[in-house]
Amino acid sequence: MGKHICILGGDGYLGWPSAMRFSALGYDVTVVDNYLRRELCAQYGLDFLYPVPRLKQRVALWEAVSGRRIHLAELDLADPENMRALFNPTGYERLCDAPWPGAPEAVLHYAEQPSAPFSQRDYRCTDLTLVNNLRVTSNLLCAVRDLSPRSHIVHIGTMGEYGTPNIDIEEGWLDIAHKGRHDRFLFPRQGASVYHTTKIMDTDLMWFFVRAWKLRVTDLMQGPVYGLETEESRATPELRPYFNYDDQFGTVINRFIVQAVAGHPLTVYGKGGQTRGYINITDTLQCVVAAVQHPAQAGELRIFNQITETFSVRELARRVREVGRKRGLKVAIEHVENPRTEAEEHYYNPTYQALRELGVVPHPLDNATLDSMFDIVQGYAARIHPEIIFHPLQQRQPREQD
Amino acid sequence: MGKHICILGGDGYLGWPSAMRFSALGYDVTVVDNYLRRELCAQYGLDFLYPVPRLKQRVALWEAVSGRRIHLAELDLADPENMRALFNPTGYERLCDAPWPGAPEAVLHYAEQPSAPFSQRDYRCTDLTLVNNLRVTSNLLCAVRDLSPRSHIVHIGTMGEYGTPNIDIEEGWLDIAHKGRHDRFLFPRQGASVYHTTKIMDTDLMWFFVRAWKLRVTDLMQGPVYGLETEESRATPELRPYFNYDDQFGTVINRFIVQAVAGHPLTVYGKGGQTRGYINITDTLQCVVAAVQHPAQAGELRIFNQITETFSVRELARRVREVGRKRGLKVAIEHVENPRTEAEEHYYNPTYQALRELGVVPHPLDNATLDSMFDIVQGYAARIHPEIIFHPLQQRQPREQD
Repeated sequence: MGKHICILGGDGYLGWPSAMRFSALGYDVTVVDNYLRRELCAQYGLDFLYPVPRLKQRVALWEAVSGRRIHLAELDLADPENMRALFNPTGYERLCDAPWPGAPEAVLHYAEQPSAPFSQRDYRCTDLTLVNNLRVTSNLLCAVRDLSPRSHIVHIGTMGEYGTPNIDIEEGWLDIAHKGRHDRFLFPRQGASVYHTTKIMDTDLMWFFVRAWKLRVTDLMQGPVYGLETEESRATPELRPYFNYDDQFGTVINRFIVQAVAGHPLTVYGKGGQTRGYINITDTLQCVVAAVQHPAQAGELRIFNQITETFSVRELARRVREVGRKRGLKVAIEHVENPRTEAEEHYYNPTYQALRELGVVPHPLDNATLDSMFDIVQGYAARIHPEIIFHPLQQRQPREQD
Repeated sequence: MGKHICILGGDGYLGWPSAMRFSALGYDVTVVDNYLRRELCAQYGLDFLYPVPRLKQRVALWEAVSGRRIHLAELDLADPENMRALFNPTGYERLCDAPWPGAPEAVLHYAEQPSAPFSQRDYRCTDLTLVNNLRVTSNLLCAVRDLSPRSHIVHIGTMGEYGTPNIDIEEGWLDIAHKGRHDRFLFPRQGASVYHTTKIMDTDLMWFFVRAWKLRVTDLMQGPVYGLETEESRATPELRPYFNYDDQFGTVINRFIVQAVAGHPLTVYGKGGQTRGYINITDTLQCVVAAVQHPAQAGELRIFNQITETFSVRELARRVREVGRKRGLKVAIEHVENPRTEAEEHYYNPTYQALRELGVVPHPLDNATLDSMFDIVQGYAARIHPEIIFHPLQQRQPREQD
């Protein structure tokens, strides 16, 4: 039996590929999910590009192709009792219908509502995002402190926590000199949505638990991820992660490719000078594995900036247009009114060296990668619903004030 | 009819004195509470020093002595629908059984679980604190944005958000130079408890809403408050704020006086070099009134450090011992093992000028103030339960890690 790793949010875009990767590496893997994101997508009519089986079926498919069993618990981790049961042999065996594989070496925490636009669609969506994301984080921290204090927590944060400051972005921390004295603090954070703000709040909470109870935590400040294929999903398309192309749950490169295939103009928000760090889903898996295999120390909140390179939205649109046109598609770029609260032209200079120092080999975005994404998306062209691609300015706008 | 002010957490130690003060100043006052703190104190056997009537009775008493009516809604603001009803004429009239007094000029937000030790007593208390405090803040921000965007939110934060940094503490913000570039950020925050961390999380959320939707917010970073009498409560003891002397909900000066009266040694945590900013409850009321009468601008998160002076815990214990001994009491000081996660000797140099510039006249702690507190506490000496004064090391301790 290998080492045990527990993946919270194991149904997700990153959760399921991570589960297969760790299983392939010989870990005992437990995935946990309550299908919140699926339910939200269903409720708001935001279809995936292709059907994705639920975890029970994916676990069986994976066992059929790999010979390895992933354990499964379908439950809501916002309830502290559910979270605690996972870290208790009796509770675990009841929930997973499998023998207790021992305390997890690592817990990957992906179990959060991940959409910035959804998080501020209306007050109910804000409340749901806040309560779900923060309770899961807090419940996990308490459960690990009380029941499994040596387990390494690996949390997915976001580069969006930093916002777009006018100074260089360091990896998580900043030395500050002020009036002749010095101290070291979390790098200043100011996110551009309720969702990003909940990730900042996660960081605050993790940092307190690390200081107070000497937990081991790695926080991966990830940029938007693109891609829909990993080594383990090549066996069968049904093992691919789910893929949103709407303007709520879709990420920008994925969305642009679907727009190009559907003959919809690529929707660049405002001037398109918004610059962010991006990463391929296969590089994300490398990063997560590196973080797990080189754990944080007791009492350490270790923060890595998890991106491969930076692009402006304009540049991304042009890259997708170039590849699309070579494939004979008619691709236009349209600058639409920006529904987000963000600067459209700004300084952006993040550091991202620490994961490379752990051995991650980055794969920059190239035309071959875009081509292989087009190959898959074009295979599902008939399933694209044009009406969910883009909704102009559905976000709530600032009110006029005196 | 005066201007309308809405006080969330109007039953509390600061909420009720604030309600009377604004009522005395001619405001139309609405108080809202669900009695969470009373229920927690009852559940854990943490009696108040003297009985304090519920709001319905206090509102009637206040009307009898002042001729002014305070409106009352007893409801849980962690439910977003309850929060929204308050800002809606029909909802308000149903909840308060009073005519709609118009959109509030200001909303004072005190509606949070206020105890640091309670917030980390166990995982259930952590979950309760996190969910209650953050949902109320988030619900308020959404309701004001959607229904009452000109209302000025005045939130009670805590100096404890800053922790004890090795640099001077500014009022909320810090200019940072880094690698030849500059930007201005929230002053770095790292609290010493789950409770303090929820206040940091409140700040993150308020700062996002202010940037995104141009709300007006003042955040008062308050030090521990002492005192049990305000101008308005002199009419009758039943109008006094409630007074905890236990080690969960009691604040340090209040507790030391009860300990001195009960013949219990003054319990100084560790070396007692922990230095904080303190403020008299009457100065708190001055500050809150000044903040309301000089509102923040649209799109401004205004942060004031709300303290009168700084003391180490050791110094406070000596001051209370000195006054107690003059009154003929036998007062000892005992250094007990520190149940908190905090440095016991540290640099501490906070700025606190902004409220003075708005006209607040500070009243430093003097022996006459301590004497008048002793007068009241000695009147209730028979009601002091020695068994709730102090519980050595009931807090969860760091676990041993490899």
